[in-house]
Amino acid sequence: MLTKQELEEFWAEAGKIYLNHISIDCVVFGFHEGQMKVLMLKSNNEEAWYLPGGFVLKQEPIENAADRILKERTGIDEIFLQQFYVFGDPDRSKIHNEMYKDMLPEDQNFFAKRFISIGYYALVDFFNVTPTPDNFSEICTWRDLNDLPRFQLDHELIFKTALDTLRLQLNYQPIGYNLMPKEFTMPELQKLYETILDKKLDRRNFQRRMLGFGILNKLETTRKGGAHKAPYLYSFDLENYQAALKEGLKSGW
Amino acid sequence: MLTKQELEEFWAEAGKIYLNHISIDCVVFGFHEGQMKVLMLKSNNEEAWYLPGGFVLKQEPIENAADRILKERTGIDEIFLQQFYVFGDPDRSKIHNEMYKDMLPEDQNFFAKRFISIGYYALVDFFNVTPTPDNFSEICTWRDLNDLPRFQLDHELIFKTALDTLRLQLNYQPIGYNLMPKEFTMPELQKLYETILDKKLDRRNFQRRMLGFGILNKLETTRKGGAHKAPYLYSFDLENYQAALKEGLKSGW
Repeated sequence: MLTKQELEEFWAEAGKIYLNHISIDCVVFGFHEGQMKVLMLKSNNEEAWYLPGGFVLKQEPIENAADRILKERTGIDEIFLQQFYVFGDPDRSKIHNEMYKDMLPEDQNFFAKRFISIGYYALVDFFNVTPTPDNFSEICTWRDLNDLPRFQLDHELIFKTALDTLRLQLNYQPIGYNLMPKEFTMPELQKLYETILDKKLDRRNFQRRMLGFGILNKLETTRKGGAHKAPYLYSFDLENYQAALKEGLKSGW
Repeated sequence: MLTKQELEEFWAEAGKIYLNHISIDCVVFGFHEGQMKVLMLKSNNEEAWYLPGGFVLKQEPIENAADRILKERTGIDEIFLQQFYVFGDPDRSKIHNEMYKDMLPEDQNFFAKRFISIGYYALVDFFNVTPTPDNFSEICTWRDLNDLPRFQLDHELIFKTALDTLRLQLNYQPIGYNLMPKEFTMPELQKLYETILDKKLDRRNFQRRMLGFGILNKLETTRKGGAHKAPYLYSFDLENYQAALKEGLKSGW
């Protein structure tokens, strides 16, 4: 945890290291067995929760910046972050401006500037990932989508826009490869879709549509051990899955 | 057209007016009766073609900036521009840096900076729009997608990414309201999709799928005057069309 003086030194140095006016915010959704969460940080200095975000180094490609920022702020590495929207309201960083304006004269205060933020999002299995807070944060943790804290700045808008994007994306991109076990049943896959969409889907429509995409292999084994009729097991057809990631699902024109 | 001195004055002033490091580029696709074009500018000072682009005023929301830039640079107003991607390679504006570096010392030279560009795109009826060049351009015109000039900077990447986005969007959003006459035949609407996708579609599949979206009204009148059997006329069901714009086409989950 940083002292007030260390924080002031950081803000004074930041303008020499980072591009002015541009920030990145990451919305990392976590899924595991029917539960959906989002990765958040609680600041040291305020009773306030944020999405993990940061700044772009002067000569750094923005994709690298997104990966680096997520790693520095949460310890999480090697996940596929996708751009989804840019947040450019001139007042979006005003709370910060107010908060830090007494600490340093404006020309030395990186945070007194206007920031346009590029939103990145990802969906991971939260069971495989251990969030770790950085020096600016007291807590870095998965928050349940049904029990979210109040977001600071415009981070609720960023979160909601990412969730809308994820839900829309379910219509034209395959999903689930990193979220399901290697072999899974159709009801287990349906649960993933239902959790993301936050609604019930019709079992028969789901199965017909999902099989129509041609991204699943039906296995010869069934799930053993239940009281009911053993359900069929499926795995993803990786070649078709990858092709669908590039060209969209077969429902396309 | 600006003199070299006027241009130097503009660059010296630009840093006081505009946010550093952020630009906007617009990809405006034009469609009319089976033809697809893109709006481009030819610079005064070089044998070089650009997409219409510009900078964000210090206190301007980025959406307003996109509208203003398109209007200032091409005379085109009141079209619906959508964000589609951010281009953040650190070397993407290098040609400009080289070109302008002898004109002004670097600290006064707005264009010597690194720029991250937010891409916006739109699709309009080019028949209703008259492109007009600004003082930086010699020509502002619609270029045929089959006869494009060499793009300057990374503008070919920006153009191609916009085209990919438009094609992907056809799978989950309705299109055509501003591009088709009030009443149209199914083959006329199919021609719009085929032109954007640059491929032939099956007539019966197209009709079945399009009707399945529930965004068309079949009219009681038919198209008169042809030698063949008169085809049915359709119009868009505006209420359903608007709903589909918000929530995605019915093919969604």
